[in-house]
Amino acid sequence: MRAIVVTRPGGPEVLALRDVPTPEPPPGHARVRVAFAGVNRADLLQRLGLYPAPRGAPADVPGLEYAGVIDALGAGVDGWREGDRVMGIVAGGAYAEHVVVHARELSATPAELSDEEAGAVPEAFVTAYDALAVRGRLAPGERVLVHAAGSGVGTAGAQIARALGCLVVGTSRTPDKLERCRALGLDHGVVPREGRFADEVRARCGGAGVDVVLDLVGGAYLPETLRALAPRGRVVLVGLTAGRTAEVDLGAVLSLRAELIGTVLRSRPLEEKIEAARLLSRTLAPWLARGVVRPSVDAVFPLEDAAAAHARVASNESFGKVLLRV
Amino acid sequence: MRAIVVTRPGGPEVLALRDVPTPEPPPGHARVRVAFAGVNRADLLQRLGLYPAPRGAPADVPGLEYAGVIDALGAGVDGWREGDRVMGIVAGGAYAEHVVVHARELSATPAELSDEEAGAVPEAFVTAYDALAVRGRLAPGERVLVHAAGSGVGTAGAQIARALGCLVVGTSRTPDKLERCRALGLDHGVVPREGRFADEVRARCGGAGVDVVLDLVGGAYLPETLRALAPRGRVVLVGLTAGRTAEVDLGAVLSLRAELIGTVLRSRPLEEKIEAARLLSRTLAPWLARGVVRPSVDAVFPLEDAAAAHARVASNESFGKVLLRV
Repeated sequence: MRAIVVTRPGGPEVLALRDVPTPEPPPGHARVRVAFAGVNRADLLQRLGLYPAPRGAPADVPGLEYAGVIDALGAGVDGWREGDRVMGIVAGGAYAEHVVVHARELSATPAELSDEEAGAVPEAFVTAYDALAVRGRLAPGERVLVHAAGSGVGTAGAQIARALGCLVVGTSRTPDKLERCRALGLDHGVVPREGRFADEVRARCGGAGVDVVLDLVGGAYLPETLRALAPRGRVVLVGLTAGRTAEVDLGAVLSLRAELIGTVLRSRPLEEKIEAARLLSRTLAPWLARGVVRPSVDAVFPLEDAAAAHARVASNESFGKVLLRV
Repeated sequence: MRAIVVTRPGGPEVLALRDVPTPEPPPGHARVRVAFAGVNRADLLQRLGLYPAPRGAPADVPGLEYAGVIDALGAGVDGWREGDRVMGIVAGGAYAEHVVVHARELSATPAELSDEEAGAVPEAFVTAYDALAVRGRLAPGERVLVHAAGSGVGTAGAQIARALGCLVVGTSRTPDKLERCRALGLDHGVVPREGRFADEVRARCGGAGVDVVLDLVGGAYLPETLRALAPRGRVVLVGLTAGRTAEVDLGAVLSLRAELIGTVLRSRPLEEKIEAARLLSRTLAPWLARGVVRPSVDAVFPLEDAAAAHARVASNESFGKVLLRV
């Protein structure tokens, strides 16, 4: 089968289309003919050699999510048939014609979604829902701050929070992205000015601060994020594009009774990945089917143009998800 | 009645014994004749003017916990009688002959405990139990690190963790305190050397790191605390004697899927204070009655020697609780 291989650590040019052996599904697994694979920032880190694939995942074929059709089943798989439309998250290997998935990690693609739309769903929506609702314990009616609101996870998070009846404030360095987020349900957009945004976020919440932060940036944003927080607020750290360390005001964490919660999907053990997939099947798929939330596709590149897709994600100009058509 | 009053912000010498009006219990409240009042580090901060009493609490009479006997009841209090032995937490005012308490915040003193022992219970045990079990979600069998293991909260935390079948490692700068903690159930004691302790803590856990940290020190300890943490570990920040800020490795928080959780009892709203009191009544009182956990009394001073009691707490030489006999 055709697959994109990281030939050596480096820039987008190290991605090469290669023929690799087509995998066979072992017992309890399904093989999926991939139609679309999402491109994630983690793929760019993996390409640079900074985020190696966990054990058991293809070491040199990136790709953390897919939408497609089951084309082979291993022994002992109940409830799925060849031809079923599915989507989901994998630990790697989705930049390829086929990917092998544990059957418990499969989610049915809602009939209302095209494969292209479904390809924009898994990482963004599961990451955002897990971060907000599971780790962040977001309750209906709370106030939410979404950093990098125009990203794949950001656009998903803003919609999820809105679907829960929450007031949603988003930040982005690009005013145009915030304008587009408003069409997805963002209540207020804030452009950080010289790194400050807390006062404006608080003003948008009637002065009270936010209850949950979906934080895709970390680093230098964190002190301001804490200043925007309401008592008992939770900051869920999902990404660190603004830096891997921060000076934290522990006195504020204590007196606010705040929580700083780190999360990542890829390194989880099987049972937790299955739980994440169940979020997709049980909560998100029905929402997607009824249009409560919608995937945002920024651009679609053919598989062989994976390098251009990586460049697009790195540009910070994308809004929503960048996909590969396989 | 007699009470200790903070006459102005300052050292222990600003504490003065004064006659103040005896409070009457409003509807739904009880008045307690205080037998023993615990001395807490927060009282020292309040005396220095750094930790003002919340609204509704006596502004100038410190004292966050008491053991004594109900001597008057306001209208509409069910389930309590004059003469009942009680203990509990208040937002201030316990350095006095009488303190007024919401009836839902009272806990019955187990018959097996003297008033002196009961005076050493509320803040230490409720803080430690709430931090470990409620905020930190400590599960039986997990591994626990208790900083400042010889403090009132530390000795309570080590015993609570041990009662839940957890492996307990404690730190203290004083080897002698760790030795005394071993008699209370501490599995391993670690003396930080040049600020380092993570490697030794991990070695004591078979290399795996700890699941929950009861952190009474914060500040410069925090980077090492994170290095001692297992995946999905929770650091519950209860005190900041090592400093109010820290440089935090957010990359580690994210990849460990760790949580940094701030907590404080005093500023909580009534319903949460009642919940905390219920922990004391439902879980801790039965444990205390059966000797599963035991209060640690370091020293008892007469009320009029509150200044000496404060000096004792500030000395860092105390082991367990310092009490005032009223």
